[in-house]
Amino acid sequence: MHLFFLPHLRNGETIIPDAGQVRHIRALRLQEGDEVSLTDGHGHLATGILEGDRKTLRIVIRSMVTSAPQVPFLTVIIAPTKNHDRLEWFVEKAVEIGVHRICLAECDNSERPVVRVDRLQRMAITALQQSQRYYLPEIETPRPFIELLEKPWPAAKFIAHCHPESTKPFLRDVLTRGADAVIAIGPEGDFSRDEVYRAEQAGWLSVSLGKSRLRTETAGLTAVHTFELTNQV
Amino acid sequence: MHLFFLPHLRNGETIIPDAGQVRHIRALRLQEGDEVSLTDGHGHLATGILEGDRKTLRIVIRSMVTSAPQVPFLTVIIAPTKNHDRLEWFVEKAVEIGVHRICLAECDNSERPVVRVDRLQRMAITALQQSQRYYLPEIETPRPFIELLEKPWPAAKFIAHCHPESTKPFLRDVLTRGADAVIAIGPEGDFSRDEVYRAEQAGWLSVSLGKSRLRTETAGLTAVHTFELTNQV
Repeated sequence: MHLFFLPHLRNGETIIPDAGQVRHIRALRLQEGDEVSLTDGHGHLATGILEGDRKTLRIVIRSMVTSAPQVPFLTVIIAPTKNHDRLEWFVEKAVEIGVHRICLAECDNSERPVVRVDRLQRMAITALQQSQRYYLPEIETPRPFIELLEKPWPAAKFIAHCHPESTKPFLRDVLTRGADAVIAIGPEGDFSRDEVYRAEQAGWLSVSLGKSRLRTETAGLTAVHTFELTNQV
Repeated sequence: MHLFFLPHLRNGETIIPDAGQVRHIRALRLQEGDEVSLTDGHGHLATGILEGDRKTLRIVIRSMVTSAPQVPFLTVIIAPTKNHDRLEWFVEKAVEIGVHRICLAECDNSERPVVRVDRLQRMAITALQQSQRYYLPEIETPRPFIELLEKPWPAAKFIAHCHPESTKPFLRDVLTRGADAVIAIGPEGDFSRDEVYRAEQAGWLSVSLGKSRLRTETAGLTAVHTFELTNQV
């Protein structure tokens, strides 16, 4: 069943769907009296009934349940790719597989590409609906990586990079089942030595994602999936 | 260093690069006397020297080594997605992370989309160069899934699907480190019950990729990455 996204949901409420939602309802050949599922991205799953005809279409919320939050909590810090499509692709796949927060980072080797956070948020909503999830990940606007490094993260902190001089375990071997994590993925030119040094000084653990040379968005995705596999029960 | 792909490489040989390669050589600002790395996708890594000027550019192969094949061997059988971009994306990412053979399958619920195998092969070559690998995965033209099921695969055989009636372990828990595997991923509408039944009769093990509802190409990618993580040493 298709899952509709609506940012504010209240039991008993009547909602006028927007033009996109109306198109979707028609494409699904739904009619007056049919049930639809809705989420607000804050863990609520509502059931609504369609009322009215093509011109007066509305959804009446009949019941609402709260789904348990997905635990543990994963934050990915990632440097936006030069090609925006690759970043969008990362957001789509990360939401499908499971991520809670995506922080965009400006790094020493970033080319400061234009990032359209609104577009990334729309991608995240589509992926949320597709994968039938009820918690919409936060996507934060780009900030200097050094600031993000020094935030007091209440989680295990990992920085993935390719510098050979630091000994690096595989991320797979240092994630703990059930423990929150924040994983940082660098730009096309990797984190600078200074960034890695400052991260390690601030308690971040350098990790390897494997022996393959991965593009930024692929590295981000393998980090999300490694976390997901660690917590599969 | 950029890795050039050339299907046939012999030590001592002189190669006239094609127009695309010449553009690439110029973009990298390489000049007469510079070294370039080349692979034929059959495990050979060659070092060549650029000779000549812009108009008479050629590469002379100076040395060649054979890299050990990546083991174990992973075959992914996947139903092409309706949207060709999603299939191309899968090929790119699967090659980056590591796959040996991709077989395209026509399934009961496939919409028989047009598949451009030549285009997929070009994507695979680009990903091979990007990820500095020396073995180009084979990409086979679409065949009926039932035929592929009954091939005598010398590997552990897994079929990933969402039918609730068969008990399914997680793929993560049934892959064996060092063992070859073939993993089948169904179309947007999943494998049919008949396909799952026939696969199980033919010795395939039904598996789950996790609790998320994944798109076909995402499912394919998580299968490749689960195999990669199992074999990370």
